[in-house]
Amino acid sequence: MAEPLRIALAGLGTVGAGVIRLIEANATLIARRAGRPIVIAAIGARDRTKDRGVDISAYAWEDDMTVMAAREDVDVVVELIGGADGPALALARNTIAQGKALVTANKAMIAHHGLELAEAAEAAKVALKFEAAVAGGIPVIKGLREGAAANEIERVYGILNGTCNYILSAMEDTGRDFAEVLAEAQAKGYAEADPAFDIEGTDAAHKLSILAAIAFGSRIDFAAVETAGIARILAADIAQADALGYVIRLIGIAETDGAEEDKSGNTPRLFQRVQPHLVPFDHPLAHVDGATNAVVAEGNYSGRLLFQGAGAGGGPTASAVVADLIDIARGDIGAPFSVPVAELEALAPANSGHRQGRAYIRLTVADRPGVLAEIAAAMRDAGVSIESLIQKGRAEAEGEVLLAIVTHEGPESAGTEALRLLEGSPSLTAPPLVMHILGD
Amino acid sequence: MAEPLRIALAGLGTVGAGVIRLIEANATLIARRAGRPIVIAAIGARDRTKDRGVDISAYAWEDDMTVMAAREDVDVVVELIGGADGPALALARNTIAQGKALVTANKAMIAHHGLELAEAAEAAKVALKFEAAVAGGIPVIKGLREGAAANEIERVYGILNGTCNYILSAMEDTGRDFAEVLAEAQAKGYAEADPAFDIEGTDAAHKLSILAAIAFGSRIDFAAVETAGIARILAADIAQADALGYVIRLIGIAETDGAEEDKSGNTPRLFQRVQPHLVPFDHPLAHVDGATNAVVAEGNYSGRLLFQGAGAGGGPTASAVVADLIDIARGDIGAPFSVPVAELEALAPANSGHRQGRAYIRLTVADRPGVLAEIAAAMRDAGVSIESLIQKGRAEAEGEVLLAIVTHEGPESAGTEALRLLEGSPSLTAPPLVMHILGD
Repeated sequence: MAEPLRIALAGLGTVGAGVIRLIEANATLIARRAGRPIVIAAIGARDRTKDRGVDISAYAWEDDMTVMAAREDVDVVVELIGGADGPALALARNTIAQGKALVTANKAMIAHHGLELAEAAEAAKVALKFEAAVAGGIPVIKGLREGAAANEIERVYGILNGTCNYILSAMEDTGRDFAEVLAEAQAKGYAEADPAFDIEGTDAAHKLSILAAIAFGSRIDFAAVETAGIARILAADIAQADALGYVIRLIGIAETDGAEEDKSGNTPRLFQRVQPHLVPFDHPLAHVDGATNAVVAEGNYSGRLLFQGAGAGGGPTASAVVADLIDIARGDIGAPFSVPVAELEALAPANSGHRQGRAYIRLTVADRPGVLAEIAAAMRDAGVSIESLIQKGRAEAEGEVLLAIVTHEGPESAGTEALRLLEGSPSLTAPPLVMHILGD
Repeated sequence: MAEPLRIALAGLGTVGAGVIRLIEANATLIARRAGRPIVIAAIGARDRTKDRGVDISAYAWEDDMTVMAAREDVDVVVELIGGADGPALALARNTIAQGKALVTANKAMIAHHGLELAEAAEAAKVALKFEAAVAGGIPVIKGLREGAAANEIERVYGILNGTCNYILSAMEDTGRDFAEVLAEAQAKGYAEADPAFDIEGTDAAHKLSILAAIAFGSRIDFAAVETAGIARILAADIAQADALGYVIRLIGIAETDGAEEDKSGNTPRLFQRVQPHLVPFDHPLAHVDGATNAVVAEGNYSGRLLFQGAGAGGGPTASAVVADLIDIARGDIGAPFSVPVAELEALAPANSGHRQGRAYIRLTVADRPGVLAEIAAAMRDAGVSIESLIQKGRAEAEGEVLLAIVTHEGPESAGTEALRLLEGSPSLTAPPLVMHILGD
């Protein structure tokens, strides 16, 4: 059997401890499949003494993680520190500069610095792999980069944040409101003490921007992801959606506007959005509950491919990290984003107002005569065609009613215009909530 | 850009025509992702003049497909002839003997001769790839071989035959019986004129045996797959299952019995079965309708991974074929079954009688006093614990009733024993049907 692949592990949180456990438990089969053993040469983390539930006494410890890459007995650095910048980025740059491969689970770092790192890795002819950065244990980067490689991808979308999906599923099951369910999720460890990163959609947006780059051969453009979170969803929205045949899921979606490159300078534009959507009961994503993640890629030959599994957790994420290591042990270097960075296109963001679709608009309005007429007039004037409208009193807020409107297919700009017309109206007692309906 | 990868295409049915279309339509992006163009150097099929809806005049024609591999302008042969033996196998052997890579969609050939071909390919250091042989366009071979490579796989199972799933879904939707739905499926092109291969489970068993070899690192053992088809399922079974909270799906399932290799000579045994199963409504496979395929792999770290998509058809299958070609163009040779053939274990078949589980047993019995008592006694004597029993008259067969029994968790051997006790009883007017319930 060939020489072992020697790794250094930086960061020993849940995932780092999971990687140690996995490499120890599955050592024999990993060696068989990789063609050579994968061994841990060095580890490091902020705190050496913390109890991680795993015996680390056998491994060389590095207090200064950034020098790990310089060790002669290390072939690959596994970065599990986290954070877009700081020590994670320093270690990543240093590793590649030393001509060594990097495996990371760090979506924020890849979303912000992935192109720079990939360019450096390509120049150094070393692997840069980040399967664990998107959708935990699900091999979706590989699925897009290799499995669907023959296809022009028309759309990629999915459930990319387990915390949000756990909360939305629990709201669905219990009929309770967001704040209550969030508190419970925090108590159970399904949500962080500071949940902003998850519930505001930032984490899903990081992942979406990475998927989009691979799917469309475009430069990562995290800043262009239109992002909205789930904090404003009411139990009443979930009940309305259910009555109409939908569940609510935080969906990240990316697509190009279909324009062909032509002589008059037209180029395709890239649309990226993370937002709670209404998902029809008969769509596979409607059955994705709890902390599960799922990604759909629609290829022009493959049709709809669905990848589903655990989106987080030490075991699943470690599974993705070690899959990358096995690929490297097998000799796969490859372009991190499927094509070389120099060939990725800089796609301009698409104007979402040009999109066609159906939407759910929930208005919180004063319970008095004339309000409905005012709203109906605004919808008419903006050209929004209403498919259904449900008015519902709120027991918990006297004098206030909820209007849940589902629009017919139409330009998104019309809905935006209708809400602009209603802006500042004393009839609206709270800001409206718009959720798009996931189309076929 | 590097030299093109030159392929020969043998067999120009739906999939072959799909590969030509795909390679032409997506040429630019394929070249970008593969790092070099993929070009068709030669084609061949039984009949040169047949209209395939695709212009083949630009390609060199080979009447004798088996000599394709000898052409100096061919790097890879794509075998799409079909059939376990005959010209497909001759071409495959010849290609590898010439030191050239082989890509095939031929599940029968891989199930029967995959080990021989893989051994030859390993010796010749050429690629042998067959993503398209299992589950059409879904990259599930790659998902198991690479994406889940870090895991000990505990169980792999799924919906592997689109024709059966189409028929079962249609029976569900329409309440009609098997024969009627099959005839319609044939008229629509969803089932072959001779459907035996699909509806008897052979096709699914081919695919399952390939998946099992990769998942468990075991030698392919197609002959050991316990196989039952869907032809005996009645509309009444589907209605009963529905009332109990299940759908019926043809499921291929493979698992090891969990035994550890030890000094007393114990080795794990491999269980492989293709059979209609009752699938609980809340299981992801219960929502897989129509001709869709789906595969679940349960890894000891990844947890449950689901891969879903189109299981057949020219476009999706071509997508899988060309994904293999792109892998080859990128330089991936790798062991076809994840580990070298010499290291695959010859696992003995597990005795299904030792399995624990719940089952649905449908008996067609004479409508007269004492029959129920006889059956209940047989179940008691065999140690079968009954969870529920529904007796239902049959309008279409006077004097006959159906008994649908769902058992508690127990050894499969008990159910088999109960049916043995009832064998030859004049109370049974038709052979019983047993379907296992898919467990968590």
